[in-house]
Amino acid sequence: MPEAATAPAARASIGDSEFDRDTALTRRAPGVYDIDLSAGWTIISAVNGGYLLAVLGRALADALPHADPFTISAHYLTASQPGPAVVRTDVVRTGRTLSTGQASLFQYDDEGREVERIRVLASYGDLDALPDDVRTSARPPAIPPMEHCFGPEDGPTPVDGSSAITERLMLKLDPSTLGWALGQPSGKGEMRAWFGLKDGRDPDPLSLLLAVDALPPTAFELGVKGWVPTVELTVHVRCRPAPGPLRVSIATRNLAGGFLEEDAEVWDSADRLVAQSRQLARVRLA
Amino acid sequence: MPEAATAPAARASIGDSEFDRDTALTRRAPGVYDIDLSAGWTIISAVNGGYLLAVLGRALADALPHADPFTISAHYLTASQPGPAVVRTDVVRTGRTLSTGQASLFQYDDEGREVERIRVLASYGDLDALPDDVRTSARPPAIPPMEHCFGPEDGPTPVDGSSAITERLMLKLDPSTLGWALGQPSGKGEMRAWFGLKDGRDPDPLSLLLAVDALPPTAFELGVKGWVPTVELTVHVRCRPAPGPLRVSIATRNLAGGFLEEDAEVWDSADRLVAQSRQLARVRLA
Repeated sequence: MPEAATAPAARASIGDSEFDRDTALTRRAPGVYDIDLSAGWTIISAVNGGYLLAVLGRALADALPHADPFTISAHYLTASQPGPAVVRTDVVRTGRTLSTGQASLFQYDDEGREVERIRVLASYGDLDALPDDVRTSARPPAIPPMEHCFGPEDGPTPVDGSSAITERLMLKLDPSTLGWALGQPSGKGEMRAWFGLKDGRDPDPLSLLLAVDALPPTAFELGVKGWVPTVELTVHVRCRPAPGPLRVSIATRNLAGGFLEEDAEVWDSADRLVAQSRQLARVRLA
Repeated sequence: MPEAATAPAARASIGDSEFDRDTALTRRAPGVYDIDLSAGWTIISAVNGGYLLAVLGRALADALPHADPFTISAHYLTASQPGPAVVRTDVVRTGRTLSTGQASLFQYDDEGREVERIRVLASYGDLDALPDDVRTSARPPAIPPMEHCFGPEDGPTPVDGSSAITERLMLKLDPSTLGWALGQPSGKGEMRAWFGLKDGRDPDPLSLLLAVDALPPTAFELGVKGWVPTVELTVHVRCRPAPGPLRVSIATRNLAGGFLEEDAEVWDSADRLVAQSRQLARVRLA
């Protein structure tokens, strides 16, 4: 038998994976890119905000002289739909160490007019050029081994199996943050999971933009049952992630006035804190 | 004797204070504002980033249909100087609850050409229209009573008395985060202080934009002696602050690769968490 038949399932590689194909842009003109937003990254009918941020991040990586998003802030304006979109970028400033750019994602209304979905400001650099000092006082999240965590394939809940994105993610949730799925939210506003791409593609700075917004909302553990749309999301990418699964830890400390923050940390297999993010989200009660 | 002679020193009010005068803009055209950046908010020779954010925040409050910054993200491009500047705003989207705008602050080079200093994206709303639910799990910072804390007027250190901004702030630092001033940094990356405006003006959403960036860098407590310029700063204003002094708590958990984050919380006199911020800053060793 050919060797492939007994080898483990083929692993996708960076540049040749579902995530790469679904964030690939076609340059229409300098700084202007077309893309067909994939229905494969939707939750119920909404396109995942982290996937959209990765699309914008990829456009800026092409438009700017630096390739890695160091800090990227997105304001979500209107709900994106699967289908055609255009990304328009603007180079704000180019420097030796950092370059700053702006990007907007537009879709089309019934008369074909552009409607802005998301606007982004970001500063890019070269992660590989950073000095290798590490003085991180944060500790990796206490999360059980992957085989003791649960994904959508492990039961009827916790994550709605009808959401296309669950087919593309390897998401294994810490059972101590899964009370909401059993009707017993902890009240603690925490969510932790092992995270990867289902086709085995290793993480890179662009997939970190997806990772910070891919877990169920912390609001579920606070007993909120409604929708929690993102108003603004800022991600700091601090280190190129090592190959292998990521650990994502999200916490909410201030649910008030109908809004909440979600702070995410992403740790790689080498125990490096590779990304930090914070978002402001609205609570829309069901 | 007239009553005023025995009354406490007159307190400035919101709208009529040093901070209000120094952030006041003159509308040149729709969405375009002139301002003379005050030398009164400099640290050594740099204009404070929080003061600059408040200037941009005030311009957007005028340009947008909503008055309060809910989330505002600034990317700092080049160093601002005291003197003339122009702010150009752009209304991105107006909605019932939230409006999104963009603003840039420019100054002039030797030939009079505009040089962009800061670009901002922000979503504004009406803090007074929010429901009054509060489910904050964060606790106010453990900070000693104000009379046990120290400001620049209490000694030759800790804050360089030559910095103009110290004349305009009431800043009383928690002694447990003052080790750096005595040559004994704690190594903990924390900074806590009581914060107010010296002329007694009470806090409002715009002065919160100043408060999050007004303490000495947490890097000092990590033993870093150089300059820590802000790359990006995002502030969430979550509640209109009650009158009286604020408590500001800042923490850094990830100093690595020559960058660090600073997370700030601002608590008001009614024990409400009124603002949260995060910035990415570079470490430039002295």
